[in-house]
Amino acid sequence: MSEAGEHDHEHEHEHEHEQHGRGTSVPLEIVDAWWRAANYLSVGQIYLMANPLLARPLEPADIKPRLLGHWGTSPGLNLVYTHLNRAIVERGTPTLYVCGPGHGGPAMVANTWLDGTYSELFPAIGTDAEGMRRLFRQFSFPGGIPSHAAPETPGSINEGGELGYSLMHAFGAALDNPGLVVACVVGDGEAETGPLAASWRGHSFLNPVTDGAVLPILHLNGYKIANPTLLARIPEAELVDFFRGNGYEPLLVTGGFDGEDPMAVHGRMADAVDVAYERIAAIRADAAAGAFADAAPRWPAIVLRTPKGWTGPRMVDGVQVEGTFRAHQVPLAAVRENPEHLAMLEAWLRSYRPEELFDRDGRPVADLDALRPHGDLRMSATPIANGGIVRSLDLPRLDDFALNVDPGDRGDSAESTRVLGEWFAELMRRNPDDVRLFGPDEVLSNRLGAVFDVTSRVWAEALDPLDEHLAREGRVIEALSEHLMQGMLEGYLLTGRHGLITSYEAFIHIVDSMVNQHAKWLESASRVPWRGDLASLNFLLSSHVWRQDHNGFSHQDPGFLNIVVNKQADVARVYLPPDANTLLAVMRHAFDTQNRVNVIVAGKQPAPQWLTLAEAEAHVEQGIGIWVEAGNEPGYDAADPGASVPDVVMACAGDVPTMETVAAAQLLRERLPDLRVRVVNVVDLMRLQDPSHHPHGLPDRAFDAMFTTDAPVIFAFHGYPSVIHQLTYRRANHRNLHVRGFIEKGTTTTPFDMLHLNDLDRYRLALDVLHRVPGLEGGTGVAEIADEWRAARSGAREYAYEHGEDPDWITAWRFATPPQA
Amino acid sequence: MSEAGEHDHEHEHEHEHEQHGRGTSVPLEIVDAWWRAANYLSVGQIYLMANPLLARPLEPADIKPRLLGHWGTSPGLNLVYTHLNRAIVERGTPTLYVCGPGHGGPAMVANTWLDGTYSELFPAIGTDAEGMRRLFRQFSFPGGIPSHAAPETPGSINEGGELGYSLMHAFGAALDNPGLVVACVVGDGEAETGPLAASWRGHSFLNPVTDGAVLPILHLNGYKIANPTLLARIPEAELVDFFRGNGYEPLLVTGGFDGEDPMAVHGRMADAVDVAYERIAAIRADAAAGAFADAAPRWPAIVLRTPKGWTGPRMVDGVQVEGTFRAHQVPLAAVRENPEHLAMLEAWLRSYRPEELFDRDGRPVADLDALRPHGDLRMSATPIANGGIVRSLDLPRLDDFALNVDPGDRGDSAESTRVLGEWFAELMRRNPDDVRLFGPDEVLSNRLGAVFDVTSRVWAEALDPLDEHLAREGRVIEALSEHLMQGMLEGYLLTGRHGLITSYEAFIHIVDSMVNQHAKWLESASRVPWRGDLASLNFLLSSHVWRQDHNGFSHQDPGFLNIVVNKQADVARVYLPPDANTLLAVMRHAFDTQNRVNVIVAGKQPAPQWLTLAEAEAHVEQGIGIWVEAGNEPGYDAADPGASVPDVVMACAGDVPTMETVAAAQLLRERLPDLRVRVVNVVDLMRLQDPSHHPHGLPDRAFDAMFTTDAPVIFAFHGYPSVIHQLTYRRANHRNLHVRGFIEKGTTTTPFDMLHLNDLDRYRLALDVLHRVPGLEGGTGVAEIADEWRAARSGAREYAYEHGEDPDWITAWRFATPPQA
Repeated sequence: MSEAGEHDHEHEHEHEHEQHGRGTSVPLEIVDAWWRAANYLSVGQIYLMANPLLARPLEPADIKPRLLGHWGTSPGLNLVYTHLNRAIVERGTPTLYVCGPGHGGPAMVANTWLDGTYSELFPAIGTDAEGMRRLFRQFSFPGGIPSHAAPETPGSINEGGELGYSLMHAFGAALDNPGLVVACVVGDGEAETGPLAASWRGHSFLNPVTDGAVLPILHLNGYKIANPTLLARIPEAELVDFFRGNGYEPLLVTGGFDGEDPMAVHGRMADAVDVAYERIAAIRADAAAGAFADAAPRWPAIVLRTPKGWTGPRMVDGVQVEGTFRAHQVPLAAVRENPEHLAMLEAWLRSYRPEELFDRDGRPVADLDALRPHGDLRMSATPIANGGIVRSLDLPRLDDFALNVDPGDRGDSAESTRVLGEWFAELMRRNPDDVRLFGPDEVLSNRLGAVFDVTSRVWAEALDPLDEHLAREGRVIEALSEHLMQGMLEGYLLTGRHGLITSYEAFIHIVDSMVNQHAKWLESASRVPWRGDLASLNFLLSSHVWRQDHNGFSHQDPGFLNIVVNKQADVARVYLPPDANTLLAVMRHAFDTQNRVNVIVAGKQPAPQWLTLAEAEAHVEQGIGIWVEAGNEPGYDAADPGASVPDVVMACAGDVPTMETVAAAQLLRERLPDLRVRVVNVVDLMRLQDPSHHPHGLPDRAFDAMFTTDAPVIFAFHGYPSVIHQLTYRRANHRNLHVRGFIEKGTTTTPFDMLHLNDLDRYRLALDVLHRVPGLEGGTGVAEIADEWRAARSGAREYAYEHGEDPDWITAWRFATPPQA
Repeated sequence: MSEAGEHDHEHEHEHEHEQHGRGTSVPLEIVDAWWRAANYLSVGQIYLMANPLLARPLEPADIKPRLLGHWGTSPGLNLVYTHLNRAIVERGTPTLYVCGPGHGGPAMVANTWLDGTYSELFPAIGTDAEGMRRLFRQFSFPGGIPSHAAPETPGSINEGGELGYSLMHAFGAALDNPGLVVACVVGDGEAETGPLAASWRGHSFLNPVTDGAVLPILHLNGYKIANPTLLARIPEAELVDFFRGNGYEPLLVTGGFDGEDPMAVHGRMADAVDVAYERIAAIRADAAAGAFADAAPRWPAIVLRTPKGWTGPRMVDGVQVEGTFRAHQVPLAAVRENPEHLAMLEAWLRSYRPEELFDRDGRPVADLDALRPHGDLRMSATPIANGGIVRSLDLPRLDDFALNVDPGDRGDSAESTRVLGEWFAELMRRNPDDVRLFGPDEVLSNRLGAVFDVTSRVWAEALDPLDEHLAREGRVIEALSEHLMQGMLEGYLLTGRHGLITSYEAFIHIVDSMVNQHAKWLESASRVPWRGDLASLNFLLSSHVWRQDHNGFSHQDPGFLNIVVNKQADVARVYLPPDANTLLAVMRHAFDTQNRVNVIVAGKQPAPQWLTLAEAEAHVEQGIGIWVEAGNEPGYDAADPGASVPDVVMACAGDVPTMETVAAAQLLRERLPDLRVRVVNVVDLMRLQDPSHHPHGLPDRAFDAMFTTDAPVIFAFHGYPSVIHQLTYRRANHRNLHVRGFIEKGTTTTPFDMLHLNDLDRYRLALDVLHRVPGLEGGTGVAEIADEWRAARSGAREYAYEHGEDPDWITAWRFATPPQA
């Protein structure tokens, strides 16, 4: 091990542990044996479908017909796993292994099989020769397991497919897990991604007393698929600066090059791991004694530099493979066809001396027991990683937080998210250990400041007397990175806790891909019987498209809903509460669900309030409902909505579209009192979808009773109209459905002008009705509405711009005055 | 200026320029005057709608009715702009200003008005008192300009709305611009984002001889909206390590705290800027003399630490504002209502001594001329930033690269992207200065390796003798960060060049939000008359959802198309070429367009080839077409497609769905020779949309002639079925449209099994026809197809998994054999 020692640096005094004595309870020979066994099992998975123990010479028929998999990263991942096992056995420190490098599946599976966990969880894959054969065969095989760590991999909380999220998952896992070490192997390819680059500083939100520790292990094997990696090619002094600049003291372990004996590398790696665990223990002890009050600790990190595909074939067909990008996937490509390759594979496998590692029945030899942690201390078996520790929350009653809405006089103005903030603060107060709030510097801006009566934002860096709501301890985490916030929340949820992320609506697209991957994880995990249920991933999207008074076009994008509605029906939920009490009821429901992605869109600006708490709860329970008072449908009978036939249905989803629809219905009621208008409000968007496509889908009979099968439907929607068409195209009345929503027209302007630009304002909606209901065009009241529309439209732009006054804002606010139902 | 001097560091010898003599042609008093003028204009924009020169005491009516805008970042941005002007005037070095911090609009607009550029480009905003009034009034005003740098801002190539992309834009701008300095102000909030964190190492892809230089200027003003920033709160030694660890030598400038005289800060800032420009010049000279062959240069970077809202009100209503997060937006919030705030605003404005800066007519005083670069050297006026240098490409003829497809014997197998690679290599050869290829380590994997016959991947870090296609000079850029690749390409395009990014289809979601923002830029820029047209942003998405034989569910997501089809119709284009020649024709077309986002999806695996080049070119020209040979429609007349009435239309878009549809049609032709089947292939997806929604939309008459108005349509689609429904819901025959596509069923399995899982295989498509065409159910041939389907389905999973053999892959490959049309 090198301590970055050639660099003269002010932090040199922290190196006091350098001359530590290494624990000796597990001889390095056994460490090496475990590593060889894991390497053997990794190679076996890539190549073999029979003859797993090489009981006889390899034959072409033993080889898989198509060779798929990634050898390059495996020996390094195996080395780390082996040495972490040693640390756990010697110290008893609970440790989680987060595997960042892509396609590390063979290594993770190999070690969990050696742990015994794999056979416990998958009884068909026993810890014997037949189990080993099946283990090999299923890898990257039709109907088998993928080549990366995945939900099917015991002990994994990180998918090795889309790279970049391992370290943020690790930091999320460490939160509120005092005593835990989360060891996170970061691949040098993955380290080039933006999300990973942003997560090095995750420790700035870690409290060494109340949280666990994250031990990053940067694995420099030098190459990605076809290119060298950046961090492997910069000068070593620069690499050390990079770690120090990110708040770490790096421990450098380099070895295995030019045929170096692995035993020497084991010695250095064992030293580095020991130093790291000891420093973490010291940081904890110092922090508990008060040191954290003064300064952030400097955490250890390990930089492990070994050849790509180490111990694999060095030269193949005349070119170097080990230590180059050519070792990334399958070093020997033509094993079935080429006898020379077949012989090389056999020699490679035998180089691990399997006869010393497995008995004749294929069971790991007894020597390896010394390196196998007991029970849940096995990294593959810890309930923290496998969904085993989720606790039901103590959810506060809504009654104490609901707005008092008078059903006889609806429409008082309030900020919905501010109301939510009070409830959420109580939620955090009642559940002080396992609820967190994450936001990209927008918790206050999104009106959730009440949480700061209960807790603070946690901050491990320097504090200033002028800081507000910032402290060494706190349950709110804010950094200006949607990626980091999303990733830490995912890590927190994946290890059995609960949380909410709040974001500007437009910018949540930044994490589209992360949400896709998390939804895929949930979907795949639901088919893995030994994984426990997880708390849902809950989003509150505020500062939405319709209220960006001083922001421009770049802040206006409701397309995240399009992403979510394409996710699997078991997972995806979208809620558009029209007011504060509905928001409360939706959020309480969201925190009562498991294994979902709940997306809740709600404005933070003053807006009319419609429903009492009881009404809101019933509305959320139904997910969709007819707002009788807002419409104009004499004789309507709630017990039999299909019996009444309205002339038009005005549907709405979203707080601003609801306001405009209610106002448009009022305009129509005033001008055309004989027009039978029905107002339908949708809070649970998936109610619209065909029930064969989504479990929340309203049965056709109920849908038809509500929307009719032949009346025009004017649907005012918060997002892109495509979402509504996508959800309703199978419905009988879809041909009469006319959707207004965001049509990508935006700029820096007033709320009313935004609606006007996108044809979603109340006048436009009323005119839509007049255009679609036969016989109304040109009739009484129509000209009036058209005149008002033109006046408002003019006021929205030209007047405000040409004159020194400001009629538009005034107009907009007047418009916001709720109509009396 | 501090040189991070207290740190003992091996790079100390690079500090040789520390004792340079500062250029003296522009006195610092004039520097200060310009800065004061810019600050004055920034404050004026946020507050005033009249009385811009304070010709009389401020009155409430002079104040905007709603105060919106961001003061906090403005004085720092103004300081940088001022000092860069000084460097340009003294040195004549062309310089671009990339403004990273959010909401820096007031500062950027203020300086461009002082430059004179604003009035040249917006004649209604003159360089006089009335112009100043209008300049103030339009800011964050209905119908006016946004509060962040935007397309409307002269000299800007970076939107200050969604943060994180400034530095990657800067690196993209510097490519192939030798002699240019791209100064990039990075906000300390923005610096927390993942994309920004990944872009510090952008210089690893810069050649100091043939490219320009990027000068990052990290502006530490300490706070975001409501939180301190990470980089402002870490120890200074750590910050220096961070820069050195990212390959820079930082120049630290701290000032303005505790009432420090700005003149002292000007001195330090001028020194730092001088050192930076001199080092850049030295690096260029050294590199030209050969030094670059040995090692990457260590570029300068400036760290500017000043108080947030510097020179604004220090205390407001008893709390400190300057130097805290409270200075982020509007320091004095109640100016119209509160006389004390009004007086403070007046005092604040007068503190800049406007009478010394503007004459009585509102024109900048002559002294400021000394700091105003001439003509295009003004950072606001450079054609590089304003779309003024786009060159038409020399596009190679397709004939030399097309596959030879025999119309009498279609269906030979080829890798489409490999064919494209040859053409693209020639494109790069013919246009050696302004075409680049970007990819996240996937250029070879996506079969575009032919480009390496023409050029290499550029790499400024250490080279190894075993490296392939890696060199100090090269026009391909690869890093494992979709963000960085996308951002550098955007910067390259925004400064007038051409390029392509290639990515795995699933992972392009990583840049959803960047693509949204670029599309918004293009849309907004199209309304800015003085901005030139830009080359389109071209995507090649390969390794797509249907071919992930060893990757799992995480690699299977075609949802990027949903993102793109929601963009404005002027911008969004989606192409799904079914074979190699069509891919060639599409790509050539894409490189011949401007101001678009062209998304092209094409597989890299061996696949059947259908069209001759002439047919492919005609097909791309039409965007959609009837494949007569693939169908079974005797008597069909191409001149009058509506005259023939098929029993069923089988439509397809995407290479794999096309293969399955052609095969299904063949199955039907063999089994039910009397069934009239029409095959329609869609290559330009937007042809499906209503022509009132998209300029490529097929007129209803043509659409109806092709799809009929009442026959069942079975549509096999590459992506989510929702895309097709979204595009076609207005079409007459939409009620009979049945779409098969990706329904989120994926795992590690064979190509055929993927199709089977998602009901998109040929048997399923044929059965769909049988279910939808009246009278066929149970008829001749149906049972056979159902039997074959069951056999294939069984083979796809159970058989392959239970037995030692591999029939599924064989089956899949057999299926790929094209049917004879």
